[in-house]
Amino acid sequence: MEIIKEESLPIAMHREWHGKIETSVRAPLENSYDLALAYTPGVAEPCLEIKADERKSFDFTRRWNTVAVVTNGTAVLGLGDIGPAAGLPVMEGKAALFKAFGGVDAFPICIGSKDPEKVIETVALIESSFGGINLEDISAPSCFEIENELKKRLSIPVMHDDQHGTATVVLAALKNALKLAGKDIAKVSIVINGCGAAGSAIAKLLIKAGAKKIVMCDRKGILSEETTEEGTYKRELAMITNRRKIKGKLSYAMKKADVFIGVSAANVLKAEDIAAMNEKPIIFAMANPIPEILPDVAAKAGAFIIGTGRSDYPNQINNVLAFPGIFRGALDAEARDITDDMLVAAADAIASLVGEDELCPEKVVPDAFDGRIAATVAEAVRSVAEKTGVARKFRDKD
Amino acid sequence: MEIIKEESLPIAMHREWHGKIETSVRAPLENSYDLALAYTPGVAEPCLEIKADERKSFDFTRRWNTVAVVTNGTAVLGLGDIGPAAGLPVMEGKAALFKAFGGVDAFPICIGSKDPEKVIETVALIESSFGGINLEDISAPSCFEIENELKKRLSIPVMHDDQHGTATVVLAALKNALKLAGKDIAKVSIVINGCGAAGSAIAKLLIKAGAKKIVMCDRKGILSEETTEEGTYKRELAMITNRRKIKGKLSYAMKKADVFIGVSAANVLKAEDIAAMNEKPIIFAMANPIPEILPDVAAKAGAFIIGTGRSDYPNQINNVLAFPGIFRGALDAEARDITDDMLVAAADAIASLVGEDELCPEKVVPDAFDGRIAATVAEAVRSVAEKTGVARKFRDKD
Repeated sequence: MEIIKEESLPIAMHREWHGKIETSVRAPLENSYDLALAYTPGVAEPCLEIKADERKSFDFTRRWNTVAVVTNGTAVLGLGDIGPAAGLPVMEGKAALFKAFGGVDAFPICIGSKDPEKVIETVALIESSFGGINLEDISAPSCFEIENELKKRLSIPVMHDDQHGTATVVLAALKNALKLAGKDIAKVSIVINGCGAAGSAIAKLLIKAGAKKIVMCDRKGILSEETTEEGTYKRELAMITNRRKIKGKLSYAMKKADVFIGVSAANVLKAEDIAAMNEKPIIFAMANPIPEILPDVAAKAGAFIIGTGRSDYPNQINNVLAFPGIFRGALDAEARDITDDMLVAAADAIASLVGEDELCPEKVVPDAFDGRIAATVAEAVRSVAEKTGVARKFRDKD
Repeated sequence: MEIIKEESLPIAMHREWHGKIETSVRAPLENSYDLALAYTPGVAEPCLEIKADERKSFDFTRRWNTVAVVTNGTAVLGLGDIGPAAGLPVMEGKAALFKAFGGVDAFPICIGSKDPEKVIETVALIESSFGGINLEDISAPSCFEIENELKKRLSIPVMHDDQHGTATVVLAALKNALKLAGKDIAKVSIVINGCGAAGSAIAKLLIKAGAKKIVMCDRKGILSEETTEEGTYKRELAMITNRRKIKGKLSYAMKKADVFIGVSAANVLKAEDIAAMNEKPIIFAMANPIPEILPDVAAKAGAFIIGTGRSDYPNQINNVLAFPGIFRGALDAEARDITDDMLVAAADAIASLVGEDELCPEKVVPDAFDGRIAATVAEAVRSVAEKTGVARKFRDKD
């Protein structure tokens, strides 16, 4: 590889790859006999079968294995609202990860609108090309409306990865961390800093998994029913968290907390906040690229377990641990949905891949390149989909 | 291959392939160094470059080589309005042909609406994932509105293949046929039977290429200004054809005609219609799967050259001769459009591939599997795009 002068390595490499995915052909197309089978006139027969029963599109095309990676470019990485075309390199990267880790054929769909209604309509109209929809990098609160409405309308599974992929990996990491700390999820006090897509989904999944004492903070401080605006998603979050109805800043919430989960911004957590926590504090500081507190500062302040979103520190809490296996399992089950039960099963599967002998404060999640992850997660997700009646229910929406 | 009992061969093969295309990964994803380059944090740099200049999405992603194969399933093959999901096997087949013949990464997008406005809106909203749009199997007259509006709105080339791919191959075949017959395109009398997407585009492209005497017929007979309804696309066709303002049925139009081009229905052309034509009649009977007249019947009636849409007769007039090379050339030129000039150049290129020594009534078009076709067409299309100012004009719509 010859790096073009004055270009950074990522720019030079993206230019050289000229695309991180491409299509390849699965059916032979060497002669007119092949053409007659795969194209006209042979293709008319599967078309008519699907016309009579749309589910058969999963038998006769790649739909069974195909996921759209959908964004409108409003919350790309930490870069914010950079637009749909500028989001394409991320969506293409995600599509590459889907294939490399989960064997899923994923394709980027970048939508040129910030209007949630238009995003919903667009995805609903192209549903029949896909077996699943992975929403990505869509800003809050639009992402909630878009996901909820698509889950209602579509016959195929829909998941906003920034919400549920993140929540799944956090739950996996938390389960192992609590095991090491000898604490019970139902009893620990958890502070989530950041009430966007990720924070919101983390709160809900932890509650689903048994957490009872969660306090959420945004830039202004602790969310409470009294202080958050009616009719907003933050109000809904306030209503299912903060049972003690406390008020104040993040530092107040941190007093006697057991767990800090940051999906917010660089350096917002102070050493004294950690010092004020219960014994064996668990700190997941996942702001990218600079975490809420640097791991060495957190360790000095007494943190027992520290995780970040970065690959250059231990315990990288990375969505790639979850989404390839979740969609692999949902597609294998021909699931009509991705439910919380399936996400909890995925979290358990991820957590289980750190063996008793290797579980330690520096390793509460498996390495992203542990080759067992996607298959293990997929099997857990598929199994729960089967048991809970979500599998093989195409077009059977309630 | 073990054929599943009681299944036809195409059904069994489509089940076995389980998809005629898939994605593959072009960037290495073996370790966290790879991940940091191709995904986060490295991917942020190309994103920001594209945010500043959208054209750079063609440098840093697969957009430069990616075409959406878009349908709403309203006119699939000869099967009619079978819906978007039932159209998927055809779109997937087309995507496979794009790659196999033209090296183009194509992806099926099946849209669940018959409303032209919704189809337009959907394609316009997903533009930034693609370098080109191939419209496919959309019924007339919606297909005209959809194509025209998208050509106006989008910064990337748009082509309805049933119109312009077909017209291009017909023009190529006609040029060689006229050469053999020793006739001049400006002087011959041409009857086009069928005024849908294909017939309409054939008429316009032949006029562009110099044809002056065209009469079009639909089921009711000859199109004329006086008899077709105002404000319809057929009226517009009537206004640019039928200069002698004749009226009557197809059989009347055929008297003293030199060329018959059928894009209509089985068996609508009679032996006596051919007998009534000028000397050396040229018959392109392209209805699928059963042509307007069977080749042996046409030959007995005196046809000089006969072409059909079928692979089991000589002179297969097949879009696959055109679309892979047309889009290959348009993508290579980074064209903002596919113009008539580019289509005429493509037709000339296709015609040129039948050498003087092999040109004969049984061979007026090259064989679909002649490996030179796509590259030759692409080069001609690219060259015209460059010369006519269509190339490298992204976002420069007038």
